[in-house]
Amino acid sequence: MKTLILAGGKGTRLWPLSRELMPKQFIKIFDGSSLFQKTLQRALILSKPEEIFVVANREYKFRIIDDMRDLNIEIPKENIYLEPRARSTLPAILWVLRTNSGKFAILPSDHFVEVSEDYKNAFRAAERLSENFLVTFGIKPTKPHTGYGYIKPGKDLGGGFIVDEFKEKPDLSKAKEFVESGYLWNSGMFLFDSRIFIEEAKKLTPEIFEAFEAHESLEEFYDKIPEISVDYGILEKSNKVAVVPMDVKWSDLGSFDSLYEILAKDEFGNAAIGEKPIAINSKNNLVVGQKLVATVGVENLIIVDTEDALLVSKRGESERVREIYKTLSAKNDKRVVIHRTAFRPWGSYTVLEEGERYKIKRITIKPGKRLSLQRHYHRSEHWVVVKGTARVYSDGKKTLLRPGESTFIPAGVLHRLENPGKVDLEVIETQIGEYLEEDDIERIEDDYGRE
Amino acid sequence: MKTLILAGGKGTRLWPLSRELMPKQFIKIFDGSSLFQKTLQRALILSKPEEIFVVANREYKFRIIDDMRDLNIEIPKENIYLEPRARSTLPAILWVLRTNSGKFAILPSDHFVEVSEDYKNAFRAAERLSENFLVTFGIKPTKPHTGYGYIKPGKDLGGGFIVDEFKEKPDLSKAKEFVESGYLWNSGMFLFDSRIFIEEAKKLTPEIFEAFEAHESLEEFYDKIPEISVDYGILEKSNKVAVVPMDVKWSDLGSFDSLYEILAKDEFGNAAIGEKPIAINSKNNLVVGQKLVATVGVENLIIVDTEDALLVSKRGESERVREIYKTLSAKNDKRVVIHRTAFRPWGSYTVLEEGERYKIKRITIKPGKRLSLQRHYHRSEHWVVVKGTARVYSDGKKTLLRPGESTFIPAGVLHRLENPGKVDLEVIETQIGEYLEEDDIERIEDDYGRE
Repeated sequence: MKTLILAGGKGTRLWPLSRELMPKQFIKIFDGSSLFQKTLQRALILSKPEEIFVVANREYKFRIIDDMRDLNIEIPKENIYLEPRARSTLPAILWVLRTNSGKFAILPSDHFVEVSEDYKNAFRAAERLSENFLVTFGIKPTKPHTGYGYIKPGKDLGGGFIVDEFKEKPDLSKAKEFVESGYLWNSGMFLFDSRIFIEEAKKLTPEIFEAFEAHESLEEFYDKIPEISVDYGILEKSNKVAVVPMDVKWSDLGSFDSLYEILAKDEFGNAAIGEKPIAINSKNNLVVGQKLVATVGVENLIIVDTEDALLVSKRGESERVREIYKTLSAKNDKRVVIHRTAFRPWGSYTVLEEGERYKIKRITIKPGKRLSLQRHYHRSEHWVVVKGTARVYSDGKKTLLRPGESTFIPAGVLHRLENPGKVDLEVIETQIGEYLEEDDIERIEDDYGRE
Repeated sequence: MKTLILAGGKGTRLWPLSRELMPKQFIKIFDGSSLFQKTLQRALILSKPEEIFVVANREYKFRIIDDMRDLNIEIPKENIYLEPRARSTLPAILWVLRTNSGKFAILPSDHFVEVSEDYKNAFRAAERLSENFLVTFGIKPTKPHTGYGYIKPGKDLGGGFIVDEFKEKPDLSKAKEFVESGYLWNSGMFLFDSRIFIEEAKKLTPEIFEAFEAHESLEEFYDKIPEISVDYGILEKSNKVAVVPMDVKWSDLGSFDSLYEILAKDEFGNAAIGEKPIAINSKNNLVVGQKLVATVGVENLIIVDTEDALLVSKRGESERVREIYKTLSAKNDKRVVIHRTAFRPWGSYTVLEEGERYKIKRITIKPGKRLSLQRHYHRSEHWVVVKGTARVYSDGKKTLLRPGESTFIPAGVLHRLENPGKVDLEVIETQIGEYLEEDDIERIEDDYGRE
């Protein structure tokens, strides 16, 4: 069976943890693994590496490649589909399934799922049903959650049910009715036979179907088609939809509240990611941090501390985090876009400090990678190697630098920084000049085509 | 009139804002001024610079000198009394008043007081009464505060009253009675004629009085005498105590709750020091920070964010912050002692980043100051000048470095860094080596006697 991983999603409800250039699915939240990596591992239960596909925004290309490399998983480059912009799930799935035939497990990359026998059995049952149906997976509810859509199961098909109806996110009293009536949470996971999917797409969303047929590349039409989910565009209208129940621990991690739900809690109901907080007279709080956090006399809070932004929210109100995101977006505040650590094809850098006329970065270059051959017109740079070996090209000369060694690149001089070794290269760069923005760079040659 | 400023106090209830090596009175909380500086300015209303005295822990010597320099105030060095350890207010005051005669205004350095005509009139009235009394200042209460001691005024003396009784911090119902009965908050400010004070000290706390008489230096006896406040040791027992009422905005700033009380608040009751927070559906919160803070759906919180520690406390519970301080102290956690910025006689440094085998600091050296002539055995150092001009002595040679210029000091080499100019010198120092602690330093020569 093939698997398609949907790796889009900006994670705006998990700001400040999630930023546009490093969204929720790529953050190493759980034991040094990202949600995308955990989804990759789940995909391998069903498919061989060459049978795994990924669709995501093109900005996430290197996040995807890095996460795969970390796990030593090689997915063929041609299986990675990079959209120019987000059009929700329907166009993304159609793009992949129209040129690759077979049965596809469709997995969102930013959910939490605990794999169990029940999980695997559900996929087996779904595989059989997918001969005749587009199959959804419905999670057995653990509570009347108001943040999920629900699926009303109908006629028993053996291993699954016809879907009678899809229900929008309910208020609390409706949610209780749904749970009592045996409705299931819509998990966002599917199993589609490409043949049936294409038929239904042609029939139910002909304009999108035709748009794909009529054009060579997505650029030509992708911003003209509607943003539409596969649930809304096909599943709610088709008469060939089945649901297979799944009794597993699951969360869409769509809010900090849901993150709190799936984390382990101590005897006071407190959960934490990062250094263990000091909690005095405090209960039922979530603390996500990277330094010492002390709470006194507080309950039901979500505290998320990052290098450049802190969120303190009442539990249950974390959906309103979107408003912060919108406020900052409207002001073009770069703190929605970027953490103080930025990822590049060759590795990453963290801005340690900025002052008038200077900026200090810690640069990490992965083994075998190098920056572009470049120059800056407004700044000079000092490099001090702190770990690994650097090959430096500057002003026509090549040098090897070891930890403790340094070099100076005057403004205007052509230079290149490379890691020829087997371990990460770490360099402290001090920039000095009148203009220190990232756009003061002229690339003459680049391994990643960015000239 | 003379003024004695009591500048001790570790500010443990204002952790993490306040740290042992940089306590509350020296932090630039209000418009770039510290509470100590504001107290200095109040002292100048009553006294000329040569009539101002300061008593504090010896660790705060350079904080005091720096704060005075910032304001261009020169207090004679001999007026600065540095205790080897804290013994509370009685021994501190006695130490100064026994060898300097006259009337002394006694001012705590870590309180907030709004200077007004009423403030000045109160000191005039107190000066007259101090001929015959030890005078305290009682603040007219604005509410039944349970965090302050109260003073019960008795017979009217004209301009002040005999003190009938001192009352301990009351519970709420007692506080209400006190306020209704016209009791006053004990402000911790006094006006003492040294003659009367010494008489009363000799009579009421003879063992402390005698200890001073019997020894040349404090070292010999200071850890053997009891820690005792002037209120408890003398004022509550003497029959020569008067109180002058003062109707001013005042707070002992003994907790974040009291900081909240004196700060300006917006229409939602929110107060902030630092970048203006984003507040969604949030009321009556205090945010003290240095980066973006967003609050959602929360009320009555105290949020204090510093580089290496975050406090989130319910308002009204901030007295329990002491427990955090104790927990960390017991573990010898250096976060009670030091911020990431450490102050030195020549200026300061901030640790920007520490890794395995490297440490990066931003060093600021004040005009005309220099570090010691020193060497390190386990680390080499790179200096890049980012602002100002550096005079570098290294391995027998002197150089001047301008912004953008750098030098390298190998381990073991004798070196010295100096600011010969008129503006602050800022240098980025990258240390590399197997051992990077502050104690790997051999000082050959030092302007501050630290060899």
